Amino acid sequence: SRSYTVTLLPGDGIGPEVISVAKNTLQLVASLEGIEFKFKEMPVGGSALDLTGVPLPEETLSAAKDSDAVLLGAIGGYKWDNNEKHLKPETGLLQLRAGLKVFANLRPATVLPQLVDASTLKKEVADGVDLMVVRELTGGIYFGKPRGFSTNENGEEIGFNTEVYATHEIDRIARVAFETAKKRRGKLCSVDKANVLEASMLWRKRVTELASKYPDVELSHMYVDNAAMQLVRNPKQFDTIVTNNIFGDILSDEASMITGSIGMLPSASLGESGPGLFEPIHGSAPDIAGQDKANPLATVLSAAMLLKYGLGEEKAAQRIEAAVLDTLDRGYRTGDIYSAGLKLVGCKEMGEEVLKSI
Amino acid sequence: SRSYTVTLLPGDGIGPEVISVAKNTLQLVASLEGIEFKFKEMPVGGSALDLTGVPLPEETLSAAKDSDAVLLGAIGGYKWDNNEKHLKPETGLLQLRAGLKVFANLRPATVLPQLVDASTLKKEVADGVDLMVVRELTGGIYFGKPRGFSTNENGEEIGFNTEVYATHEIDRIARVAFETAKKRRGKLCSVDKANVLEASMLWRKRVTELASKYPDVELSHMYVDNAAMQLVRNPKQFDTIVTNNIFGDILSDEASMITGSIGMLPSASLGESGPGLFEPIHGSAPDIAGQDKANPLATVLSAAMLLKYGLGEEKAAQRIEAAVLDTLDRGYRTGDIYSAGLKLVGCKEMGEEVLKSI
Ligand SMILES: CC(C)[C@H](C(=O)O)[C@@H](O)C(=O)O
Ligand SMILES: CC(C)[C@H](C(=O)O)[C@@H](O)C(=O)O
Repeated sequence: SRSYTVTLLPGDGIGPEVISVAKNTLQLVASLEGIEFKFKEMPVGGSALDLTGVPLPEETLSAAKDSDAVLLGAIGGYKWDNNEKHLKPETGLLQLRAGLKVFANLRPATVLPQLVDASTLKKEVADGVDLMVVRELTGGIYFGKPRGFSTNENGEEIGFNTEVYATHEIDRIARVAFETAKKRRGKLCSVDKANVLEASMLWRKRVTELASKYPDVELSHMYVDNAAMQLVRNPKQFDTIVTNNIFGDILSDEASMITGSIGMLPSASLGESGPGLFEPIHGSAPDIAGQDKANPLATVLSAAMLLKYGLGEEKAAQRIEAAVLDTLDRGYRTGDIYSAGLKLVGCKEMGEEVLKSI
Repeated sequence: SRSYTVTLLPGDGIGPEVISVAKNTLQLVASLEGIEFKFKEMPVGGSALDLTGVPLPEETLSAAKDSDAVLLGAIGGYKWDNNEKHLKPETGLLQLRAGLKVFANLRPATVLPQLVDASTLKKEVADGVDLMVVRELTGGIYFGKPRGFSTNENGEEIGFNTEVYATHEIDRIARVAFETAKKRRGKLCSVDKANVLEASMLWRKRVTELASKYPDVELSHMYVDNAAMQLVRNPKQFDTIVTNNIFGDILSDEASMITGSIGMLPSASLGESGPGLFEPIHGSAPDIAGQDKANPLATVLSAAMLLKYGLGEEKAAQRIEAAVLDTLDRGYRTGDIYSAGLKLVGCKEMGEEVLKSI
């Protein structure tokens, strides 16, 4: 039987609850598909800070590197919000992404027919939205140097960061995006600010050059401010979006909120080789942590992405995706996606219903 | 009688049409309020490129500097899209902002009761939205140095920009924002990415320090990705937002689209002293240029902001604002905000109706 090691990183807040559900789900499909999982649970984020003094302990990173795939819950919480930069939970996440070299972050934003009412957009605008944001994840202003604090010629304090992209960084994320678009509806929109930023001008140039290798993908370009508008005006115009790290951070969150159900949205972060990192796009929700109220479906769907993109276990992935839809069809809802007449359940019970559907 | 010089910069696309309407409007309220206007029309953007070879001729900048206020139509068009950086219409606009030192860009996003159906958001979400984005306009990654293209240690091409803020730049925009919030509903949300960027950490620190001087303003902080979500989820939670140049570019466009009627939204860009720059937030719309289809109301309302913020002529400004509402109440609509049962008019006729309302 096929055997895989999966590092589980529950993290903070609702992380442990949703990871526990996803683990049970993985275990059940594994037994049905003749897969064997070895799970290794490691600390990251605020809980790692409390335990070891750093947000990404070396043991966690090496366990992650040594595994076939990594499933993360969520990180962060009020408690650590005022920590210095190197002691922030977020810094652990950035170190993990850099350490695993997962430069391509895939963030689907899909409006499920069962949940179209959850969107704040009018039904006719939200209905049928199905887009994928491909976000560059290990470059740009998040990691660019020089960065820091200094004094300018007037003796004033300054804070500064560098937005920088090299050709190979643009090319590799663009390739992932073209391939992604090809498997979807064949439309790729590259988002930049090439009317102002040199880093964006190089981005646009390289993406445009690569297009000739993907004749079956229709490439367009859009400025980031316009993209932020178009996502509200008519999100259905988009199939696949590719953009840099910071624009991807903003636009993928905007796109996810357009679906109205961010408790449902998974993500995959992939590198050239080595294990991928899979996580729900929602945060650690400290206000409802430990209350069995969290929606575990984003993490369950992240586990499906782990099977599909991380391990090539397409069939097992489809089992999970189908089970999630079936559970929704049977009327089960956590609080975040609940509407009158349906069955309100907690995190655990939702997990059990998914297992039944499988 | 009070006498002012106003530089008119029609620019490109629909710019000349909407400026012509705004000019007539200014002239009428002037005669009613005992104001005298001297108008000077100068080229900027693509039309300046065609005429003089540069997007901001020296004569245009010095005329603007010598006047009491500047009213801009719109700049840009397909024709110049592939120009080199220093020959882009956009570069002319950036040079104008820098030349006039207008560091504070005020962008209201208001959903008028008459136009609530124009929003793609559900009525209960859009109804009553009334927020103001205060965007830093002459600093950050738009102007930061070093910037450009270079070769990295692997011999690869790189494109790079610098996001940088000095304390005085943060303090002066924060002061404008606190003052703005004070005159509105007393709530200020500062948007940054302080969990990742040093430039944002300094931003947050300075804004927080200034808060003690404005005890009647309630300050909160939000990460930019979350702000992009919250604008879609519940825009009514916002009163005044203050943020850096690039985040302000993205979020103010998103906010404006949430109103559903960007053909209605004005903006004001102000400096420490010297003339302010007033412009509609919409673009040059080359596809409908010269067809008498443009909505002139954003420019007319920009003229009202010019009277209020630029010249301190509050009463004249209110006359214009009231006239715009009255024209809408009387059922007149340009194509972009038209709905069945109302009176569809072109740019010129809309302008004449505003004059009648005044
Ligand atoms: C927590 C934060 C550092 C992170 C990011 O900005 O990348 C988060 O917003 C995300 O999008 O995964
Ligand atoms: C045209 C462009 C340079 C400009 C900007 O990015 O500032 C525009 O988008 C705006 O917001 O006024």
